[in-house]
Amino acid sequence: MTTPGSARPGGRTARTREAVRAATLAELAEKGYDGLTVEGIALRSGVHKTTVYRRWGSVEGLAADALDLAGGEPWPIPDTGTVEGDLRELTRLVVTGFADPDAGPIATAFVSASVRNPATARALHAFYAARHRQSAVLITRAIERGELPEGTDAVEVVRVAVAPLYYRLFITGEPADEAVADRAAASALAAARAGVFQSST
Amino acid sequence: MTTPGSARPGGRTARTREAVRAATLAELAEKGYDGLTVEGIALRSGVHKTTVYRRWGSVEGLAADALDLAGGEPWPIPDTGTVEGDLRELTRLVVTGFADPDAGPIATAFVSASVRNPATARALHAFYAARHRQSAVLITRAIERGELPEGTDAVEVVRVAVAPLYYRLFITGEPADEAVADRAAASALAAARAGVFQSST
Repeated sequence: MTTPGSARPGGRTARTREAVRAATLAELAEKGYDGLTVEGIALRSGVHKTTVYRRWGSVEGLAADALDLAGGEPWPIPDTGTVEGDLRELTRLVVTGFADPDAGPIATAFVSASVRNPATARALHAFYAARHRQSAVLITRAIERGELPEGTDAVEVVRVAVAPLYYRLFITGEPADEAVADRAAASALAAARAGVFQSST
Repeated sequence: MTTPGSARPGGRTARTREAVRAATLAELAEKGYDGLTVEGIALRSGVHKTTVYRRWGSVEGLAADALDLAGGEPWPIPDTGTVEGDLRELTRLVVTGFADPDAGPIATAFVSASVRNPATARALHAFYAARHRQSAVLITRAIERGELPEGTDAVEVVRVAVAPLYYRLFITGEPADEAVADRAAASALAAARAGVFQSST
């Protein structure tokens, strides 16, 4: 989950959507989810309040749309040449993402908001589903290279690799650093090599 | 995390604490964290409102104390005779705990509250630290039986075993059922057997 800044191609509607999204993320980073208001986002984006209300309806709609755009964005999918290196980069991206002074608070705010807001939760779940699909390529490449057994559930390897970091960040409050990331990657890899994620067909 | 119901030994102070805790949990289950009020808990527990204010101060104090009592409570630590069986029981306990119609909403409410309330977060983190210490015995027993390598970090095996369930429940919104629990246990075990959690001393 990165802070998106670049303008997207498209006409005025796309530019408006980008401006509103950028304003939503900036407001989130500055004030947290509880500090989000349609007025604040309208003011910051330079888009008229009535337009924001008409198109996004509410703070929940704005947050969901920002997540929707983020899910569709390209991100630096690791390609180190080995599944070991790729998984390690993937788990380190989670650590650096949440530790980033700009992107971290935004990502944390989305997770926090999703536990009590169903619309944000739906958007967050769709965001993670997209990220899982994108990340699965690391594992399918590894299967093709013969590094992992045929029939390995690629998305499940990704989930298990990143899960220990989220568990520390959002449940137990324990530190999630590079060493933890490397061990989480090594753990998922060892299990994948042992055939734990092979489908039983 | 189970719904505690039994009275604890002790005098009037302990009984009052138990009554207030039981009322806090019942209110949480019924109304969620946002619906908690000192008045509601006082009314339900039969303890005078001024006493509740004096001893617990606020809703946050009440939630933290309920968690504190829960962390000190005994729970059914698996003892199946093999580390494979023990880890599977442990991960299944997470699934059944959150799926339980009484205990599940309470546990979920605590996690939800902790993302935006520092006092509840501290209490939740202490609760998980206690649970990790209690669960680590499964792994130390396995090391003694020769099922896992010497120097295996017992608490880290526990974290990695349960993390995929929390990741699904609180981050991605994906189902967390018995099959997921069994695979998470098998994954942590395979990694532990491969020496991933051995300290490098």
